Amino acid sequence: MTIKNNKLTSDDVKTLNQYWALANYISVGQIYLLDNPLLKEDLRLDHVKPRLLGHWGTTPGLNLIYIHLNRIIVETKSKLLYVTGPGHGGPALAANTYIEGSYTKHYPDIQKNEDGLKKLFKQFSFPGGIPSHVAPEIPGSINEGGELGYALSHAFGAVFDNPDLIAACVVGDGEAETGSLAASWHSNKFINPIEDGAVLPILHLNGYKIANPTILARIPEDELINLFNGYGYEPIWVESTDVNEIHQLMADAFDKAVHTIKSIQQSAREHGFTDRPVWPMIIMKTPKGWTGPKTFDNEPVEGNWRSHQVPFKDLHGHPERLELLDTWLKSYHPEELFDSKGRIKTNINKFIPDESLQMGMSPHANGGKLTVPLVLPDVTDFNISFDSRGYEKTSATRILGQYLAAVMDLNRANFRVFGPDETASNRLDALYDVTDKTWVAEKHEDDIHLQANGRVMEILSEHTCQGWFEGYLLTGRHGFFSCYEAFINIINSMATQHAKWLKVSSQEICWRKPIPSLNYLLTSHVWRQDHNGFSHQDPGFINHLANKDPQVIRLYFPPDANTLLVIGEQVLRSTNKINVIVAGKQPQLQWLNMEEAKNHCQQGIGVWDWASSSDIKSPDLIMACAGDVPTIEALAATKILNKLLPNLKIKFVNVVNIMTLANPSSTSEGLTDKEFNEIFNLQVPIIFAFHGYPSMIHRLIYNRSCHANFHIHGFNEEGTTTTPFDMLVLNKLDRFNLVKNAILRLKNIKNEATIIADMDHKLYRHKNYIVEKGDDLPEVKNFIWD
Amino acid sequence: MTIKNNKLTSDDVKTLNQYWALANYISVGQIYLLDNPLLKEDLRLDHVKPRLLGHWGTTPGLNLIYIHLNRIIVETKSKLLYVTGPGHGGPALAANTYIEGSYTKHYPDIQKNEDGLKKLFKQFSFPGGIPSHVAPEIPGSINEGGELGYALSHAFGAVFDNPDLIAACVVGDGEAETGSLAASWHSNKFINPIEDGAVLPILHLNGYKIANPTILARIPEDELINLFNGYGYEPIWVESTDVNEIHQLMADAFDKAVHTIKSIQQSAREHGFTDRPVWPMIIMKTPKGWTGPKTFDNEPVEGNWRSHQVPFKDLHGHPERLELLDTWLKSYHPEELFDSKGRIKTNINKFIPDESLQMGMSPHANGGKLTVPLVLPDVTDFNISFDSRGYEKTSATRILGQYLAAVMDLNRANFRVFGPDETASNRLDALYDVTDKTWVAEKHEDDIHLQANGRVMEILSEHTCQGWFEGYLLTGRHGFFSCYEAFINIINSMATQHAKWLKVSSQEICWRKPIPSLNYLLTSHVWRQDHNGFSHQDPGFINHLANKDPQVIRLYFPPDANTLLVIGEQVLRSTNKINVIVAGKQPQLQWLNMEEAKNHCQQGIGVWDWASSSDIKSPDLIMACAGDVPTIEALAATKILNKLLPNLKIKFVNVVNIMTLANPSSTSEGLTDKEFNEIFNLQVPIIFAFHGYPSMIHRLIYNRSCHANFHIHGFNEEGTTTTPFDMLVLNKLDRFNLVKNAILRLKNIKNEATIIADMDHKLYRHKNYIVEKGDDLPEVKNFIWD
Repeated sequence: MTIKNNKLTSDDVKTLNQYWALANYISVGQIYLLDNPLLKEDLRLDHVKPRLLGHWGTTPGLNLIYIHLNRIIVETKSKLLYVTGPGHGGPALAANTYIEGSYTKHYPDIQKNEDGLKKLFKQFSFPGGIPSHVAPEIPGSINEGGELGYALSHAFGAVFDNPDLIAACVVGDGEAETGSLAASWHSNKFINPIEDGAVLPILHLNGYKIANPTILARIPEDELINLFNGYGYEPIWVESTDVNEIHQLMADAFDKAVHTIKSIQQSAREHGFTDRPVWPMIIMKTPKGWTGPKTFDNEPVEGNWRSHQVPFKDLHGHPERLELLDTWLKSYHPEELFDSKGRIKTNINKFIPDESLQMGMSPHANGGKLTVPLVLPDVTDFNISFDSRGYEKTSATRILGQYLAAVMDLNRANFRVFGPDETASNRLDALYDVTDKTWVAEKHEDDIHLQANGRVMEILSEHTCQGWFEGYLLTGRHGFFSCYEAFINIINSMATQHAKWLKVSSQEICWRKPIPSLNYLLTSHVWRQDHNGFSHQDPGFINHLANKDPQVIRLYFPPDANTLLVIGEQVLRSTNKINVIVAGKQPQLQWLNMEEAKNHCQQGIGVWDWASSSDIKSPDLIMACAGDVPTIEALAATKILNKLLPNLKIKFVNVVNIMTLANPSSTSEGLTDKEFNEIFNLQVPIIFAFHGYPSMIHRLIYNRSCHANFHIHGFNEEGTTTTPFDMLVLNKLDRFNLVKNAILRLKNIKNEATIIADMDHKLYRHKNYIVEKGDDLPEVKNFIWD
Repeated sequence: MTIKNNKLTSDDVKTLNQYWALANYISVGQIYLLDNPLLKEDLRLDHVKPRLLGHWGTTPGLNLIYIHLNRIIVETKSKLLYVTGPGHGGPALAANTYIEGSYTKHYPDIQKNEDGLKKLFKQFSFPGGIPSHVAPEIPGSINEGGELGYALSHAFGAVFDNPDLIAACVVGDGEAETGSLAASWHSNKFINPIEDGAVLPILHLNGYKIANPTILARIPEDELINLFNGYGYEPIWVESTDVNEIHQLMADAFDKAVHTIKSIQQSAREHGFTDRPVWPMIIMKTPKGWTGPKTFDNEPVEGNWRSHQVPFKDLHGHPERLELLDTWLKSYHPEELFDSKGRIKTNINKFIPDESLQMGMSPHANGGKLTVPLVLPDVTDFNISFDSRGYEKTSATRILGQYLAAVMDLNRANFRVFGPDETASNRLDALYDVTDKTWVAEKHEDDIHLQANGRVMEILSEHTCQGWFEGYLLTGRHGFFSCYEAFINIINSMATQHAKWLKVSSQEICWRKPIPSLNYLLTSHVWRQDHNGFSHQDPGFINHLANKDPQVIRLYFPPDANTLLVIGEQVLRSTNKINVIVAGKQPQLQWLNMEEAKNHCQQGIGVWDWASSSDIKSPDLIMACAGDVPTIEALAATKILNKLLPNLKIKFVNVVNIMTLANPSSTSEGLTDKEFNEIFNLQVPIIFAFHGYPSMIHRLIYNRSCHANFHIHGFNEEGTTTTPFDMLVLNKLDRFNLVKNAILRLKNIKNEATIIADMDHKLYRHKNYIVEKGDDLPEVKNFIWD
């Protein structure tokens, strides 16, 4: 690719300056004005919003970058995506998409005239309008930036397998202090210049956060350059406080950056991948709140943290401030920007891209438009068959790994697997039969499965994995994230933000198309943390998600390999969900054949006849369970009870999809009361062995009429490094404690005391045995059903 | 301070090598051996543990560092603390504290003889023994490292206000990939060389994680150096694969590092603080699993990720592997290390510090030993007085800020306040009357409140704030963390790890003294996110903590300024807790005078007589609430009901400490059933207005006999940028919806339909008003009680 010498003409500078004034004017208008958008009338208090809510400080910088990206798009016909790290600068993105026309394409009610401008201004941060952040409502956005730190990993996620896409990612120097952002700079070790696109990070060094200077703005320039060299980038420095000078500097910097990106890509695509490239980045040092009020109340505002939000407020209480606003707005010369009908009159067309290349029209930012459904192999081909139930021991996740490998093989360029250095540990290594791990850093001779075009992505940062995955999904592709159950809590808050994005985009924004679901496999779970112990024992992620919109959340506990396969297929087909699958990686007993597994998973909950007594219409006891390990214990307890009390009628219930327990008014997954009561009867004690915290079940069944019959065993925050069975005993989720509780809840058991004593004796033997031998009792380890 | 030229003698090298061999032998012994600790007998299968659980890879490096730190302690009499980032290398820390004698001081049962060695070996990662990680059980530790990423921020937290302490912090190159760790390098911009100690980071570049190379080991050396220069450090490079050469290099590096640290401190302490110093760090590049098996099954182990855990396992299934273990163990020449009674015979005494300086004896690592209780001012001095209830509008957190300022003034060098750039936004800025913000980076002329000796610590990384705070607490000091409610979820998992640490250290380890509590103020809460919106609306942190050991967790919802003051004092007095206080920063109505506030907070829950009907022995309805905004709505609803139904008997209940609702068997805070039923009666509908998710209350009262009477209003994940009252309406927590629900739950209300229609009309008026005016109805905004 050749780039013209881009020395801007003085006309260009003037035009760009007008373009920027236009964007800034429309930004300030959104923050302040309820009416009189063109300042045709003298500004009055009733033209000003009663509650002034928004963020000015970052906005002029975001505008400047948008404009210069548009210039380079026009120049080079590049496909660009704008990722707004300082997402609180919402006015900038609304302004720019309005100017280029993409806003009106998405919201025909907001036309490019006086009425449209008035509506645009009023709706911002106004009840019934749009949020003040770059929320899903904004065309062209895949990153809200409400909770800071994820812009860069989202940008990288967006460009994987999009070789022609450049994600221009604005990183605020405030956001740059967060952990997730600090880690994500290293994503450049995972970009394949042949098959992936590129990220152009733009560090906006405006110097201040809410109320403090930023760290990166207060270290020497050479130290900052070193930092980014150390992260593997070649920084291009742009610095000015002169509105005329800045455009030339920006144009040069963007030319250089895009030219370097294209050269790197061209070279790799022509000659093959050799070494990790050093990608360009831009450091843009400009004043915070640039072009806004210089001071207010004798305190500095421009170039200071005081410009972060609304530079001056409470005009209704201080009408004299109206003049400040008037002066500020008029400094952009609206009469030169708009004609009398509110149409943009300044001639900036030469810097506005064709519609198909406008960033607000990017199909990548409305990823569902580009989604190609996965070609999914038949899970039956991966079926674990067995002669008798509860005999065959298989690692369920290993089988799932084989299935995922087949999915990978059928869907190259459309599917990736993510994990924090745990993919093999989680037994998904069959994937390496069909692909490798993404790796463009240095390689050693004895390395295995590391390739620039590998499709399993591992970095020891859960935040970066999650951010990449979200970026990949938001741009319409598919994926799978496996993680130790305890450590997925590290990204609790990221999952919250994604759930909020999904809720809003699926329920409130008609132009946003459904995107593939965010699928988690949580394994190495609380019950099998053999060498790790208490710090690795936490099943709380599901509780966290259960607080989010239940239409978005699905929580699955497949009890064996075949059910895991069925659920695996199901989640890969779904859209606009966060699916959590909890399943252990250790070899465990198998219970259902494929046909049964399919039926069971379709219902999400069911009675297992083969584990129940013959007459289950009127049982004496219900033994229920959710989770692979609890299922084993519940079955073992059932077997003990069958032996001790042959006449006891036990109904055995297994729950795969625990949202079936929830109130049907909150989620479509919830059983009706009739269905629920048919399964759980009305007057029978229910011993429920659950994988996670008992409170999770309590809250789901709170409104069910028979909920007082439930006696829930689960994780009670007791743990250490010990044997698998001892972990269950510590939390009273083991078979013996289940039997004890069943006996206590049943009435009229003649030999109650004897049975309790017998169970206590078994627990006593267990404790002695493990302290002496360091291993579980053989009778417990070798339990089989038949 | 002068340092001798530390060129080691060849005898020194030999001794250090033996010392290292000793530590490595004791490490391998812990991982593998059940018996025969001195290899006096030929190694048999029954000497080997049945379940081999632990991590070898990082261990020899941790040992090497420990030994060389001991050398420098002996040499310079420095006070050092060892912070183990790769905390899964538990055997190293157990081995080294055993060798120096501090382990036996803490656990007299483990003597330095054959029996003690046998016990030490057996207990490791064994039921009834010690966890495999550097858990609270290990003397000298303040950092477990189970969940990676917090070592460096813990280390910095430990040295604030400890001018003589050096925290040597080992950072694994795996951990270095995490977000929290990547951000925490910048902590050096917050170290005051005069009043704080120093952190010596030691990046252990052993090249591999669980199953992958690390990023930092696969970038060019100059890039890595640039990265750390960019982070503001001067790296000292130590690299070798030669066991004889390494000691000299390590000694030189540690000499240089400690010398530089002391020079920096001396200069600042003599001449005053001028510029931020460039602190030294060490990059130690040595093979992973060094001195272990070179290969296994023809695959590389030493210097490879395959050494990460137990290099070869299942000896019982493969008895031929016994020889490999025997060879490995004997490579350390145990016969030279121990005498026949298992006493250490190799003469390493010259490198073992005096007991008072041994890292395993550091009082800083058992911080409660050093805790000086805070001198607390009388909250009555900060009392908000008022003539009539519900008239005075005051920002509760602003008053708390004045109290915290007084606390700060009385407890310099013992108290710090932490926050992610939100201290002023959260209205705690009275603190700046008595102190400044910690800042040692560059300053500009117009900066305010930035000083090297400031005691308010702000960085836009919740992880770093939390890590600093934990490190400060774990070393026995006090603090306070204020944060937007939504974004505290970013450190959910860190709070989990701290809760686990507190549970174990307070309930299971008798030598660990109580440490001051971790106190959170969550403000800018879900109901007042005026300019931020949905991404900032999440009250889920309390749900997350409620899953942890209830003896460790306290959750407070003070309804006004005086109650906030009382709770503030209470949490600052407490130990071994995680206290969460949720209170808004906006000016709100005041309800209780100081005397009432004290009584109310002492009970944690209470009937407000003045808001109740005259006859509350047998009420018709209970109006209950927890949280400042819900209290206003519940009172407003009560007032509406009083007016509409003058004969209706309403009992008004406010909950400050929501753990009072919990089952008393799970927490000492829980009301007995008798107390609970006295407050909530038995047959009366209870309308409960709650600050957070209703599920939080459901799970707490699940076992209370009257729980079916509770009708809980709270946050239902509905939100956007809108008016404060509209947020309540969106979630049906507003006064009108509370009244509607009360009417529906009450029987025999004659004019039921009229009242419902009236409330619906008010809601309709509200919606119209906000969409038109962008503000709340005056009647709602100006509600007063009297």
